[in-house]
Amino acid sequence: MALMPVTDSMFLLAEAREHPMHVGGLQLFELPEGAGPDYVSEFHRELLSLADVRPLFRRRPRGPVGTLGQFAWSNDDNLDLEYHVRLSGLPRPGRVRELLELTSRLHGYLLDRHRPLWEFTVIDGVQGNRFATYSKIHHSLLDGVSALRLIQSSLSEDPSDMGVRPPWSPRVRTNVFDKPRRSDAPDPFTAVGRLVKDVAGLGGAAAKVVNEAFREQSATLAFQAPKSMFNVPITGARRFAAQGWPLERIKAVGRAASATMNDVMLAMCSGALRSYMLDLGALPDRPLVAAIPMSLRARSGGSSSSSSSESSLGGNAIGLILCNMATDEPDAAVRLATIHDSMLKGKQVYHGMSRLQILALSAIPLIPLAVGTVPGMTTLTPPGFNVLISNVPGPREPLYWNGARMQGVYPLSIPYEGQALNITVTSYAGSLEFGLTGCRRTVPHLQRLLTFLEESLQDLEKATA
Amino acid sequence: MALMPVTDSMFLLAEAREHPMHVGGLQLFELPEGAGPDYVSEFHRELLSLADVRPLFRRRPRGPVGTLGQFAWSNDDNLDLEYHVRLSGLPRPGRVRELLELTSRLHGYLLDRHRPLWEFTVIDGVQGNRFATYSKIHHSLLDGVSALRLIQSSLSEDPSDMGVRPPWSPRVRTNVFDKPRRSDAPDPFTAVGRLVKDVAGLGGAAAKVVNEAFREQSATLAFQAPKSMFNVPITGARRFAAQGWPLERIKAVGRAASATMNDVMLAMCSGALRSYMLDLGALPDRPLVAAIPMSLRARSGGSSSSSSSESSLGGNAIGLILCNMATDEPDAAVRLATIHDSMLKGKQVYHGMSRLQILALSAIPLIPLAVGTVPGMTTLTPPGFNVLISNVPGPREPLYWNGARMQGVYPLSIPYEGQALNITVTSYAGSLEFGLTGCRRTVPHLQRLLTFLEESLQDLEKATA
Repeated sequence: MALMPVTDSMFLLAEAREHPMHVGGLQLFELPEGAGPDYVSEFHRELLSLADVRPLFRRRPRGPVGTLGQFAWSNDDNLDLEYHVRLSGLPRPGRVRELLELTSRLHGYLLDRHRPLWEFTVIDGVQGNRFATYSKIHHSLLDGVSALRLIQSSLSEDPSDMGVRPPWSPRVRTNVFDKPRRSDAPDPFTAVGRLVKDVAGLGGAAAKVVNEAFREQSATLAFQAPKSMFNVPITGARRFAAQGWPLERIKAVGRAASATMNDVMLAMCSGALRSYMLDLGALPDRPLVAAIPMSLRARSGGSSSSSSSESSLGGNAIGLILCNMATDEPDAAVRLATIHDSMLKGKQVYHGMSRLQILALSAIPLIPLAVGTVPGMTTLTPPGFNVLISNVPGPREPLYWNGARMQGVYPLSIPYEGQALNITVTSYAGSLEFGLTGCRRTVPHLQRLLTFLEESLQDLEKATA
Repeated sequence: MALMPVTDSMFLLAEAREHPMHVGGLQLFELPEGAGPDYVSEFHRELLSLADVRPLFRRRPRGPVGTLGQFAWSNDDNLDLEYHVRLSGLPRPGRVRELLELTSRLHGYLLDRHRPLWEFTVIDGVQGNRFATYSKIHHSLLDGVSALRLIQSSLSEDPSDMGVRPPWSPRVRTNVFDKPRRSDAPDPFTAVGRLVKDVAGLGGAAAKVVNEAFREQSATLAFQAPKSMFNVPITGARRFAAQGWPLERIKAVGRAASATMNDVMLAMCSGALRSYMLDLGALPDRPLVAAIPMSLRARSGGSSSSSSSESSLGGNAIGLILCNMATDEPDAAVRLATIHDSMLKGKQVYHGMSRLQILALSAIPLIPLAVGTVPGMTTLTPPGFNVLISNVPGPREPLYWNGARMQGVYPLSIPYEGQALNITVTSYAGSLEFGLTGCRRTVPHLQRLLTFLEESLQDLEKATA
């Protein structure tokens, strides 16, 4: 038994029925040629026969233990692999609609804390000679970005490679578990966790850094976000919607407007959110503010505000950029220009900062999320931002699981108290895959956002043609 | 908003991840002749189109409210019927095995307290031209017996009746919600709940009754039950196994041995439990003690120990009979004779008692269950009994849902802390349907009990031939 670092346990302590703290991934595969009707159940049986499980996937939380209420990790010596690795089916006709309904339901349940905090479901009965997998893992084990990377690391670029192992196998080669890499994963909640630890470790010197960051913060949009339908208390049930768009379409708009691919993705979201909220009569007068975690270049060398070696580390750091989404603007081209501008300014704020300063500044708009776990606080605290949008780079080449081609991979993330909608996108083999995770009650008809995303991209294409 | 009576809220207060307090029912239907591939999804869509929902199925818990931490019921004005009424599929090949796996999983999740505490899942893809439904309802809304009765009341004996409504429809005619009837449902936990209320209402007079009952209790087997593998702390995941046996086989054994059908059912369980525990090297030297809730005839007229009209009511009352299961005995005929004898003695203990006395005496062996919700207590308190076995009489005639014949109906019940296995049986159209609900971790390979039940019945048939 090992006491759990606060960076892990904060996700267990913050968890309640209303905001399960797990991330997920939906993968869609094509059945290999000649696959019989038992292919999927055979695939599942084979997974169960591989009893080798990486230590991370064997540990389960114990506690709170002791008077400090701290959690500890212990090893599950009787890991019940059949419990974790499940086989499910879709009702007929097995369209994407039925697949998303099942995935929404699976993503809404809490993981069982008596067992290692992960589940993997193989899904049979997907229309069009396909099958799917849904992975679910607690944020205290892996953040969303690392989970997505691990899924991708486990697959092969070679369709004839029959030695592919599941993500929990110790034989999967990945850099996800390398300590130095973990810190540069663009996941804001891990960043806050590390910040807590870093600041605690620094003692008095930390105060100066945070003060400095607060002064800089006036340049950002924090706490200028309007109240919106997404910034309300949430319930535990989830709705998930997912779709991919050809990267080429997005790149073409970017080239025409001298904007980055990320800008165009945000402009797609902006147009879609605007249409969605207009439809519901819920569009705020002021523009929505999105929070976008980005990997930023940190200043190397010593820092004037701290002599700690921790804070003087250069390299990459996670910065949370606040972006004016221009949802008050009817013109798609103007929206894209505003977003492009806002993102540039957002990055400039961090220019020349040390890693710790970047973290401290990024943490400020996240504070309401932490406060949100106190009942009733959501309605009192102004939102630091309106919606969290993450962009996780993925592999360019098609990937295979023992010959089954992965058609798409869609990330499922965590809505928080006061943050009822999460948008995470990832690139894969020439397409940009959107995963929208929302609270079932407060974000109705989430799937309409998919239609609005397509319309929004068409508007951008027309505006830049 | 109405404050919740303690008889309802005790099930919410006692609930934890390890012991969800909901009951369930699995129904298996034959597809009507000429049903197309969309029959099941059409069936589901039709259920969603019936927006009429009985008030009981609209209320959800609020609280704890106020300083006393009491729960209240409030009405869900935005009932999201699609959330409650789901459509699921089985993976191929869709055997009973896959059906039981899905049902086990669905029965292991907690209901969402933000919504009315029930779910209904229509299950597509069952082999042999069948489909299934799984109902789940919190014990604070309906006890297991009433839930089973409600399911049955909603169906029709007429295969051509196309006006069948789902159990949550206010148009289902049933006596389940008649107050006087609810009290005679043979459910021990409802009985304890009522006892708390009755005793609280009686004040000083109650003490005498309970004292009297304690003296009588020396005649019963309470607290003579050995420690067994079933009387341990449990986890939240469930395993469910179900099968029906022809009533005629059971009756034949009863006739040959001058035993009741209930005795033979218990002897089947006894033999099966013995084989199962022998297999695992876990058979205690002393015989297991089963607790069997039964509807008993209570004494009418005034009671010497209380002048309250509540306690002087005659009619039926729920008594908890403790039965020596003779699991230490290798001979099937001797086991049956011992059980028959023990049941007779158990009933005699209650002879001439008032309703309140019956309830008070029945509550004594249930006390460890209440204590069991305190962590760590399970290992310290001796079990009041080893396994709870309920027998709920059901309809004799085949029932239909808009022409789909119900092949079988299997009850799912609640394992408790210290009571890892529950056996509930119900009769239906010439067969006795067994539903075994166990904690997934502490009751391994639960499905083996089905094989052992068949072997046990064969042994009884040989012994009485």
